[in-house]
Amino acid sequence: MEATPASRDATGGRILEQAAALARHSDAPDHYTRTYLTPAHQAAARVIAQWMREAGMAVRVDAVGSVIGRYDAADAAARTLLMGSHFDSVRNGGRYDGVLGILVPIACVAELHARRERLACAIEIAAFADEEGARFQTSFLASRAMLGRLDAAVLERRDADGVSLADAMRTAGLDPARVADARIDPARIGAYVEVHIEQGPVLLGEGSALGVVTTIAGGTRHTLRVRGEAGHAGTVPMTMRHDALAAAAEMVLAVEKRCAAGGSLVGTVGILRVKDGTGNVIPGEVELTADIRAGDDATREAAEADVFAACDAIARRRGVALERTRTHHVHAVACAPWLQERLAAAIEETDAERPAPRARRLPSGAGHDAMILAEATEVGMLFVRCGAGGVSHNPAETIAAEDAGAAVRALLAFLRRLPAFPADGPR
Amino acid sequence: MEATPASRDATGGRILEQAAALARHSDAPDHYTRTYLTPAHQAAARVIAQWMREAGMAVRVDAVGSVIGRYDAADAAARTLLMGSHFDSVRNGGRYDGVLGILVPIACVAELHARRERLACAIEIAAFADEEGARFQTSFLASRAMLGRLDAAVLERRDADGVSLADAMRTAGLDPARVADARIDPARIGAYVEVHIEQGPVLLGEGSALGVVTTIAGGTRHTLRVRGEAGHAGTVPMTMRHDALAAAAEMVLAVEKRCAAGGSLVGTVGILRVKDGTGNVIPGEVELTADIRAGDDATREAAEADVFAACDAIARRRGVALERTRTHHVHAVACAPWLQERLAAAIEETDAERPAPRARRLPSGAGHDAMILAEATEVGMLFVRCGAGGVSHNPAETIAAEDAGAAVRALLAFLRRLPAFPADGPR
Repeated sequence: MEATPASRDATGGRILEQAAALARHSDAPDHYTRTYLTPAHQAAARVIAQWMREAGMAVRVDAVGSVIGRYDAADAAARTLLMGSHFDSVRNGGRYDGVLGILVPIACVAELHARRERLACAIEIAAFADEEGARFQTSFLASRAMLGRLDAAVLERRDADGVSLADAMRTAGLDPARVADARIDPARIGAYVEVHIEQGPVLLGEGSALGVVTTIAGGTRHTLRVRGEAGHAGTVPMTMRHDALAAAAEMVLAVEKRCAAGGSLVGTVGILRVKDGTGNVIPGEVELTADIRAGDDATREAAEADVFAACDAIARRRGVALERTRTHHVHAVACAPWLQERLAAAIEETDAERPAPRARRLPSGAGHDAMILAEATEVGMLFVRCGAGGVSHNPAETIAAEDAGAAVRALLAFLRRLPAFPADGPR
Repeated sequence: MEATPASRDATGGRILEQAAALARHSDAPDHYTRTYLTPAHQAAARVIAQWMREAGMAVRVDAVGSVIGRYDAADAAARTLLMGSHFDSVRNGGRYDGVLGILVPIACVAELHARRERLACAIEIAAFADEEGARFQTSFLASRAMLGRLDAAVLERRDADGVSLADAMRTAGLDPARVADARIDPARIGAYVEVHIEQGPVLLGEGSALGVVTTIAGGTRHTLRVRGEAGHAGTVPMTMRHDALAAAAEMVLAVEKRCAAGGSLVGTVGILRVKDGTGNVIPGEVELTADIRAGDDATREAAEADVFAACDAIARRRGVALERTRTHHVHAVACAPWLQERLAAAIEETDAERPAPRARRLPSGAGHDAMILAEATEVGMLFVRCGAGGVSHNPAETIAAEDAGAAVRALLAFLRRLPAFPADGPR
């Protein structure tokens, strides 16, 4: 589904080329991993800033490394529509996750700039420096910082090599003492709109290039630390063991079993580390994560209570200690109805190939920076069809050039019809 | 149970002090981990060589870094009793594991040297450079090399930082092209005797300082690589997942369950690594080890067959791929009856505090260099009581100074009564 010279959609083809070029700025030589403040991450930031400037935007880098481009409105006093997404990735991830939500708005502004059009609202595009948090386990760091809601304690977190977040910032030329400077005045933002690859199979299954997000699933992530008793793999009888890994294995299966209850509920253990793991030693300590999400908070909270009660029972039965720390929490978020309406109208106006008269509306199972921005303004999201069966957070993640082009056309239509804030929105 | 100024046993106290001094040569600043060819490992080798020289021995370092001290017999043509053990450790291990089997023989030779005694056989003490294999997953590397049975393919193995074993050898001043030079002529070895901390609770439970090993359990270690499908933790429904970690968790529990069948059988998953593990990504690939041991090969082989059939069934049911590689295999080994007899007689002659008239005999659940030497000569083993409930491969591992002293006295009695080979042994 990659763009080819024969692609009918030059705008979409250009976006796919840009995504491929950005993916070459990777922490790993053989696959795409780009984590917060690495050399590859800083190189990607410079490329994005250059593309924003070429699109006619004024560019600044904020105190946590996010790249923010601004395209003024016709009226200098107009409030701002903020758009954006993130340019960090998960390990061995997909090149459109996050990046698409930066490239599509830049393409829209480039088109406006080429035609010397100014809109009723100013546009800012935020390329958020850290959303996945793969390096320091810091989800939504950059959008939190933009709202002045970054917990300073995260600066002490260390990556797998023992480098603190504060030191990584210094190495990248940022001052960890000044992260509060990333805060913007939310009063000047009229709304936030995020374009994102769907990361699931719904639009693909229904033949729609684009969709309007209704709600974003809430989720929590916990770190569980299991402490048993290390010992010699040959000399400690099975009945005398307190094997931290065997206990953790039961917990992994407890998460999986409870979260398979159906509906929008999902549960994932993405990290499991055996401390000082050696083939001939009974594991004494294991750390694992539990990521639990659902479209509504009550469903998720009930599942969490059951999962952690099961983990406590496993720990008691096996004579191991269990500590649990919540490292991430976002409530489920509803997208603003008026933004949903306007995004749907823009799709219906521009996407002639949609299978139904009305644009598809669907919930998002993944978390997005929009969840954080929703604390300060109203949010809307435009989903772009995910190819390859809907896989994401995976090198096989792909989109069609035609779909990227459709996203640019729909977003442009949305932008051109957007009145100055707060004319027709609650704000 | 550490030696104190009030300890009654100066010889044993000195051994505990030496073990403490050696443990300070550690790869880690805050605990004891000493892996093959690290700076700490090389420093420990130099200290051991110095102690051997001080005990009156001629010292050489072999082609894989083992330190070998020699104390000639009265008759220059006499064959050699080889003693020894290893000075590498598991990660976060105990300071007596391996090291005790170097220090007790050195103390015996120091005593002989001080009294200008020569024995009927020559003595060599081998401080083996790598037995645990924690850095390169290379069990018994040094004793295998001594018999000319090192598979050159292991030189290509890499540690967690990507350093190859061959490069680590070069950095340590060894030539990987010459590992074959470590081979000794087995015809000049009359027998091999290894002193070792029991690493289990048997002697402690029965009040015996020392014991004679009857058999050494055989074991295998396999690496299992599980390949599922990475994906987004929020968007892939539970029913569509091929989670490599959930599959691996079931395999961990399959090993545990089958190996809890009783008798001498034990099974351990000591390593489990999630490739590119990130909190919000469904694991796509997991590597784990399975260490299975038993006092007899038939019991172990039956358990292995069942465990791996269960793992194959788990992989099939979950739609993940499973590859299995055997990385380690030793058959169960019987200690030579005549060496058992002589070691028991030496204990009965010297250890007045033993609880029974006859010395305790017991099997070894752990593997030892003696298993490799058994391919070329007859072997015997002397176990020393393990304190702290019998824990080993753990920082809590401990022995009493009195027990270390008892080991020196028993081994000296054994050595002094040993005739020139092959006088009363089969060789």
